[in-house]
Amino acid sequence: MTITAYFAAGAERWPTWKEPLSAAFAEAGLDVTLTDTAADPAAVDYIIYAPGSPLQDFSPFVNCKAVLNIWAGVERIVGNPTLRIPLCRMVDPSLSEGMVEYVTGHVLRYHLDIDAHLAGQDGVWRHDRVPPLAGERPVAMLGLGALGQACARALTGLGFPVLGWSRTPREVAGVRCHAGDDGFARTLAEAQIVVTLLPQTPETENMIDADALARLPRGACLINPGRGPLIDDAALIAALDAGQLAHATLDVFREEPLPPEHPFWAHPRITVTPHIAAETRPRTAARVIAENIRRGESGEPFLHQVDTNRGY
Amino acid sequence: MTITAYFAAGAERWPTWKEPLSAAFAEAGLDVTLTDTAADPAAVDYIIYAPGSPLQDFSPFVNCKAVLNIWAGVERIVGNPTLRIPLCRMVDPSLSEGMVEYVTGHVLRYHLDIDAHLAGQDGVWRHDRVPPLAGERPVAMLGLGALGQACARALTGLGFPVLGWSRTPREVAGVRCHAGDDGFARTLAEAQIVVTLLPQTPETENMIDADALARLPRGACLINPGRGPLIDDAALIAALDAGQLAHATLDVFREEPLPPEHPFWAHPRITVTPHIAAETRPRTAARVIAENIRRGESGEPFLHQVDTNRGY
Repeated sequence: MTITAYFAAGAERWPTWKEPLSAAFAEAGLDVTLTDTAADPAAVDYIIYAPGSPLQDFSPFVNCKAVLNIWAGVERIVGNPTLRIPLCRMVDPSLSEGMVEYVTGHVLRYHLDIDAHLAGQDGVWRHDRVPPLAGERPVAMLGLGALGQACARALTGLGFPVLGWSRTPREVAGVRCHAGDDGFARTLAEAQIVVTLLPQTPETENMIDADALARLPRGACLINPGRGPLIDDAALIAALDAGQLAHATLDVFREEPLPPEHPFWAHPRITVTPHIAAETRPRTAARVIAENIRRGESGEPFLHQVDTNRGY
Repeated sequence: MTITAYFAAGAERWPTWKEPLSAAFAEAGLDVTLTDTAADPAAVDYIIYAPGSPLQDFSPFVNCKAVLNIWAGVERIVGNPTLRIPLCRMVDPSLSEGMVEYVTGHVLRYHLDIDAHLAGQDGVWRHDRVPPLAGERPVAMLGLGALGQACARALTGLGFPVLGWSRTPREVAGVRCHAGDDGFARTLAEAQIVVTLLPQTPETENMIDADALARLPRGACLINPGRGPLIDDAALIAALDAGQLAHATLDVFREEPLPPEHPFWAHPRITVTPHIAAETRPRTAARVIAENIRRGESGEPFLHQVDTNRGY
C-alpha cells in the first residue's frame, strides 16, 4: 500500500527537498506518495516538518504515525499541545560533519591566535608568538549529544584535552565528563575555550550567564554554535568588556537574522557568523527520513525520537 | 665510560637546552658529559647542532660519531665539505604536533572562509555563505615526509580528500599519492588548498613557480609552512594579483625575519606568520637526541640520518 508523506516544512524548501526525498524513498524501496498539500489530512501517514512552518495544528492528522523534523532543533514545536504523535529530530550525518568542521576550525583559530596574526601584517616579526601545543589547551564541550560527541572526538584527535558536560551523566571515550551543577562549575573552571552545544530547553536557557562566565579562567574564549538563548547576551558583553572573556564567536541568536543594530555586530571581541555552523543537507537528511518511514512501517522504533518531557 | 656531547647549537640556546638534555640523558641511563665548549675536539663523541651556529669546520672532531641536529631543516649544513660523519635531522614529536595544528587550522580557515566572516561584521546576515563539506574540498600535500604524513592524517580524519605528492613514490593510507613531474601536475590540477612541506634541496627550489601556480584550479589557496625558497616570490605575487591564486599564508621566507619592506607584508591576499608553524620543543627533542646517542653507543642505526646525496 502506498504511504503518504506530507511535506510541511515550508513552501520555499519544497523545490530543494522534493527530488532528494523521492530519490531516498526509491533507494529504500518505499512506495511513497510525496505531496506538499494535504487535502485529506486523515490520509497522511508521515509529516515532514520544519519548526516555524505554517502547519501548527496537528489535530486533523488523525492517522499520522510521526512528525519527521528536517532540523536538529525542536524547541519551537515540542510544546505544541496538538502534537500527540511521535516527533523525531534530524540527526543528519552531514550536519554533524559541518558542525565538526566549524567547531574545530574556530577552536584552532583561537588556539593559534589567527586573528592576531591577521591583524599583525605590519612588518613586525613577532616570533615570540609561538602558541602552546594543543595538549596544554583544555576545551570544554557543553552538551554531549551526537554533535557534541562528534566535536569532542575531533578535538581529542588533535590532542586537545576535552572536558565534557551534560545534564545527566555520560561517558565519552577520551573526554573527562562531568554532569550536574557541581560538574558544570568544575568544567568551566578549567576551560580555555568553551563550546556550547546544548539543546534549548527551559533548563539550558541563559546557562551562560554572569555567574558561569565568572567561573572561567580569565581570558577564555567562547564558541556558540548551539542555540542563541543559551547565552545571557548582556552578561556576555559585560564579561568581554571586563576582559574576563577574551573573545566570542557566535553562530546562533535569540533573533535571526541578527538585527543590524544588535551590539554583537559592532563589538570588537565578538565574531558573528550567520547560522552556518551546521546546515541540513537535503541529500543525506532525506535518507534519514526514509529510514524512519521504513522503521515506522515495519513497527521498529524510530531514530532520534524526541522525549517530550525533556524537550529534546 | 663517559660519553662527551658538545652543544654547538648556538650560545643563546644553551640555557634553554642544558637542563632538558641532561634530564633526557639521565632518563635514558646514559653517562654523558654535556659541555658547551670543546677544548679538545678529539674527545667529542657527539655534536648537538643547529645550522647557522658558529661551528662550521668539523674536521678537528676526528672521533665524533654523529652530528645531531636540533631542527628538521639541514640545508645549511648538508653540503659542508668538512662534514664526513653521520648527520641526523630532528624529528621532534612536538614539532610534528605543532605543524599539524598550524596546517589543520589554516586549512580550516580557508575551508570555512573565516577571513570573510571576520571582515563581514557589518550587520549583513549572509546566510548564503554556507561552505561545502570537507569532502568536497581537495587538499594537496606537497611532501610526504614525517610532517607531511602527520598533516595528511589529520586532514583525512576531518574528511578532506588529500592528494599527496613526493619526489619518489610513497604510499600513505587514505591519501591519493602521486610522484614525479607528471604526478606533480596532476596533484596541482585538483587542489583547492595546497600545503608545501617539502625539504629544501636544489630540486625543490622554486618548485612553486608561475608554471605550477597556473596548473591550480582558479581561486586555490596556498599554505607554506615548509621552506621559503620552495616559492618563486614574484610568481606568487603575480598569481595573487591575477586572481589565479585567491590567498596565501606563508610562515617561512628566503630571508628571516622577513624584512619590513618586503611586499608580502602589505599584500592584501597574503598572511605572513613569523616562522611559528613548528617549533622544536627542548623537552621532547632532547629525548630524540638521547635516543640517538644510545643507538650510536650500541651500534644500532641512527634515527633520521640524512642521505647527503638527496640532501635530506
